[in-house]
Amino acid sequence: MKIAIQGVKGSFHHKVAQTFFDATTPVLECMSFPVLVDQLVSGNASAAVMAIENSIAGAILPNYALIDKHKLTIEGEFYLDVQHNLMALSGQTIEDIKEVWSHPMALIQCRSFFEKYPSIKLVEATDTAAVAHQIQKEQLKGIAAIASETASQIYELDIIAPQIQTIKHNETRFFILNTEEKQINTDCNKASICFRTDHKRGSLATILNIMSDCKLNLTKIQSMPVIEMPWQYAFFVDITFDAYSDYEKAKKVLSIMSKDFKVLGEYKNQKR
Amino acid sequence: MKIAIQGVKGSFHHKVAQTFFDATTPVLECMSFPVLVDQLVSGNASAAVMAIENSIAGAILPNYALIDKHKLTIEGEFYLDVQHNLMALSGQTIEDIKEVWSHPMALIQCRSFFEKYPSIKLVEATDTAAVAHQIQKEQLKGIAAIASETASQIYELDIIAPQIQTIKHNETRFFILNTEEKQINTDCNKASICFRTDHKRGSLATILNIMSDCKLNLTKIQSMPVIEMPWQYAFFVDITFDAYSDYEKAKKVLSIMSKDFKVLGEYKNQKR
Repeated sequence: MKIAIQGVKGSFHHKVAQTFFDATTPVLECMSFPVLVDQLVSGNASAAVMAIENSIAGAILPNYALIDKHKLTIEGEFYLDVQHNLMALSGQTIEDIKEVWSHPMALIQCRSFFEKYPSIKLVEATDTAAVAHQIQKEQLKGIAAIASETASQIYELDIIAPQIQTIKHNETRFFILNTEEKQINTDCNKASICFRTDHKRGSLATILNIMSDCKLNLTKIQSMPVIEMPWQYAFFVDITFDAYSDYEKAKKVLSIMSKDFKVLGEYKNQKR
Repeated sequence: MKIAIQGVKGSFHHKVAQTFFDATTPVLECMSFPVLVDQLVSGNASAAVMAIENSIAGAILPNYALIDKHKLTIEGEFYLDVQHNLMALSGQTIEDIKEVWSHPMALIQCRSFFEKYPSIKLVEATDTAAVAHQIQKEQLKGIAAIASETASQIYELDIIAPQIQTIKHNETRFFILNTEEKQINTDCNKASICFRTDHKRGSLATILNIMSDCKLNLTKIQSMPVIEMPWQYAFFVDITFDAYSDYEKAKKVLSIMSKDFKVLGEYKNQKR
């Protein structure tokens, strides 16, 4: 069965699929996150790899909304150290480049590099590796891609500037998603949950106090607008814990004390 | 003095500048958020209008990072009901359209509409109104823009489908920014603050308890990665209050109890 990835072979999503599953895992290339989710929901893929947050640009909020809307389960997380390389057809130098086509997140992460080259036009594209493929296929001169070293090998482009991202240590966190019913896995030590609270003062503090009392560590919190209820917020929270029993107790209390409490996934903490 | 806006005349940012300041306010058109901030910091603009969150797509996190990095002050907020319209050259119908060029946020907000037209290619562009301008200037057939009614009037395009965004009530929140030192304005009833906490369990709960004790209402919370310290988080929080004295007390306690406490702006709550 195939694993759905955002982008084409050689993309960062592809790398995650190969590392989390197996280097020979067949992948289903999807050109956007909604298409990725469609492929998973319709059964064409058995799992999907989705970028969810980056240490420079922050969370990809619309992806939280997709997970929630389609009732997907997070079965795992993966942190990838993302190194962006500028690549073009063999023989091209940085002086030849008129336009760089890449994904908006990659452009954000490399912005400082291009301040030295104000004449280069930054053009948004759907996928980093797909641009590398297009440059080779159409033999595009004057155009460069920002993509992984693997992409430069697959699509036979020369790296004209390596590691051009602003922050050298540039991690992206990915979720491994599926559509299956949650199964209790007492081996897990991390969970992603979401809930709403009423608009009373201190209601979020009350929830966080419960979590703290149950020995849960909060690693992420994000308020999100509730669709069709403008400016009411849901909270997306990641927590880690040592004992599953502590987490189980917290779940029971939180399902009483908050509204629409939902577990998005229980999985192994991939950090340390 | 000019007000910097993201995009060109007829953009949603332009509308906010005209409403918050004056309909005749001269504007400085900027083609990206970093350029907008540069124009403000270099003194070419006396203030800047910046979109910060949308009721469908959520917060524009990189803009929080820009505000923080350049030590900008939020002097006000503005909520705009954003209605997206599909527009093209006069005489064109939806069947003639091969590609729609628009800002990624606008494309996200209109995704469901285009599910009925799978042959239309969605192409990311820097600004909604700039595409409308380009279609008129270059007489582009087969291309449509997603933009405001004002843009269709300025650039003389026909609206071929009105209000195509998925959620009819689609609000975007904008900040009015400047570079001036904060002045105490006891008239304000809302503030945007940021801080870090140490990694001890319950440290965020402690901070939220203080806010609640000081009668502050939390309207937004967002954890953000700290640049160069991957997976350490800063918190960006919006609060409302009735008495400035309550807020002043909270500020004193929070500056002791959290790390790097900073006020990004104190302003009037524009909701209700």
